[in-house]
Amino acid sequence: MSESARPAAKAPAPSPVAAEALTRFVRDIFVRSGMAEPHAATVAEVLVWANLRGVDGHGVVRLPRYVELIEIGDMNPKPAMALRNETAASVLIEADRAPGPVAMSHAMDIAVRKSKDVGIGFALVRATTHTAALGYYTLAAARQGAAAIAFSASWANMAYHGARAVGVSTNPVSIAVPGEPEPVMLDMATSVVSMGKLNQARKTGQPIPAGWALDKNGNPTTDPKTAEIVLPMGGPKGSGLSFMIECLTSLIAGNPLISEFIEKTELGARHRQNALIIAIDIARFGDPKVFARELARLAKLLKALPCDPEVEEILLPGERAGRTYARRSRDGIPLPAATLAELNAVGERLGVSPLLRQL
Amino acid sequence: MSESARPAAKAPAPSPVAAEALTRFVRDIFVRSGMAEPHAATVAEVLVWANLRGVDGHGVVRLPRYVELIEIGDMNPKPAMALRNETAASVLIEADRAPGPVAMSHAMDIAVRKSKDVGIGFALVRATTHTAALGYYTLAAARQGAAAIAFSASWANMAYHGARAVGVSTNPVSIAVPGEPEPVMLDMATSVVSMGKLNQARKTGQPIPAGWALDKNGNPTTDPKTAEIVLPMGGPKGSGLSFMIECLTSLIAGNPLISEFIEKTELGARHRQNALIIAIDIARFGDPKVFARELARLAKLLKALPCDPEVEEILLPGERAGRTYARRSRDGIPLPAATLAELNAVGERLGVSPLLRQL
Repeated sequence: MSESARPAAKAPAPSPVAAEALTRFVRDIFVRSGMAEPHAATVAEVLVWANLRGVDGHGVVRLPRYVELIEIGDMNPKPAMALRNETAASVLIEADRAPGPVAMSHAMDIAVRKSKDVGIGFALVRATTHTAALGYYTLAAARQGAAAIAFSASWANMAYHGARAVGVSTNPVSIAVPGEPEPVMLDMATSVVSMGKLNQARKTGQPIPAGWALDKNGNPTTDPKTAEIVLPMGGPKGSGLSFMIECLTSLIAGNPLISEFIEKTELGARHRQNALIIAIDIARFGDPKVFARELARLAKLLKALPCDPEVEEILLPGERAGRTYARRSRDGIPLPAATLAELNAVGERLGVSPLLRQL
Repeated sequence: MSESARPAAKAPAPSPVAAEALTRFVRDIFVRSGMAEPHAATVAEVLVWANLRGVDGHGVVRLPRYVELIEIGDMNPKPAMALRNETAASVLIEADRAPGPVAMSHAMDIAVRKSKDVGIGFALVRATTHTAALGYYTLAAARQGAAAIAFSASWANMAYHGARAVGVSTNPVSIAVPGEPEPVMLDMATSVVSMGKLNQARKTGQPIPAGWALDKNGNPTTDPKTAEIVLPMGGPKGSGLSFMIECLTSLIAGNPLISEFIEKTELGARHRQNALIIAIDIARFGDPKVFARELARLAKLLKALPCDPEVEEILLPGERAGRTYARRSRDGIPLPAATLAELNAVGERLGVSPLLRQL
């Protein structure tokens, strides 16, 4: 759903950087920050994947913050993750403040493995950190033949319906199913608009539509400069879904986020996340080839419906991002000069050779 | 999320009917229609529950259509439901066109039982009929200590984002978690507005907001008389979620609904639904007393946030419906005279004594 944050009109043109070089650079930074090499490679892979998909707000722009989280102790570069209360179908992963991509990739692996054994696999992830682009994990599960559902929960940054203050999080939902040639994957925040789009409007200064955001005092605004609190998708639906995600992840795992945040406790000021992944083995219930054929049939029928003249074409969930992935894999990732400079500043401090415009 | 459909301004005042009498009447109708008494009682219980909650569009107003579905053979009053591909954690229920409440109650029981064994239980329901108010089943699961997620899929009645035609369904999502004194339960359609609200506007003739609906030709309209196709919640989010629900239920179960509907096949004109229920045993992962306490803490904090002056108070998911349930359990269910007459006409045809205004 997210669109990439574009630079302001007068900024220098973004520098395309090859995904491989960017991944190596990010991996090296996290190795220098104390992660084991395979963990650093996983975090780099997930962040750069978001850039390749065009979801730049969840991409390498997060790197300086990740390094800061490690330095202040909120993200643990050497987590001792443990499995608790495990059964053939479910498990609680004590993530020990692991980097989100490390904990979530582990959770996805376990959920998929369990789904192959008993039809469904459930991994609840307690006390991880920024899970990055949730669709990475559901898509990975779908490539292994599982339909997957993932939720993640973070501290409050969205209005609760009926409140004029931050009360819930933009907690995302991702669902993916296997398909040929590619799975279909939905990844959406529970807010009416992504923080990325709000940031983009802030840079261009263009008025935002009514219903997107409140200012810091909780008053509705269309001025991107004063917009602070994003509103939930569909009013009570978005905030209700976000509330239930906090219950299903943080409350079941015994690591509440929102209450600590609203009460302004010491814990509430720390960066913490919880999440869950459910994997369903589609082959348990029918022929995966029939599934893929029916998915293709449905996709074709929907795309052939009469099109709204205001849109170019009818798209499946994740279809636009899939095209961006193909294009950026070929042409490089257009990193704004400011982002490149920020990454190189972190690199210089940690002794990693600067990232160059490669293409 | 739904609100009750209110009668037009000049219609006679609705007649309150006691829930017990209404349940007996509905049960008797379904016994006369060929259902075994326990099945008839389940359907009656679920329909009247929706009325008690104020979700009248999913209540006894559906009875004439259910009877019609039985008479034309789309709903099977004597289903031979079978379990397929069962494991400790998951099962496919071949519902044999069972009345939705019968198949869904069965699915909920099995999912909860499996969750007690292995932490999570998954029941996929193939070839059922109208599932009625989905929240009934997740709430029942939550009363047994399970967090529950349910989806159900029906034929197309909502626009797909970017299309000017019906392409997906208003497929609902329900999520419930255990709580004290009551669980918290969300039940929402993936449309921007319920069909019930649209029907209500049609009766009063008041213009509907832009963004609610299209006319039969796919053009946006604010005239309730011409509004035919409801729009998805949050544009691509609502239609994307609905699309994924069709995949997770109908496509995994091998009983596609949308494609048959769009292609106007013979099967696509039949009333069919598919659904799934996932139950998670919260006691497997932590102390349910702590869960209930943390849920109460979160609820209290959210309800105490600064309130939007345009709303009376900040409500939790399902809170308004819970109050309606208490009030209508005490004062009776206000059935519009037209609905009462319709029910009695069916009763007369099937030899069931008329339902009287009881209160």
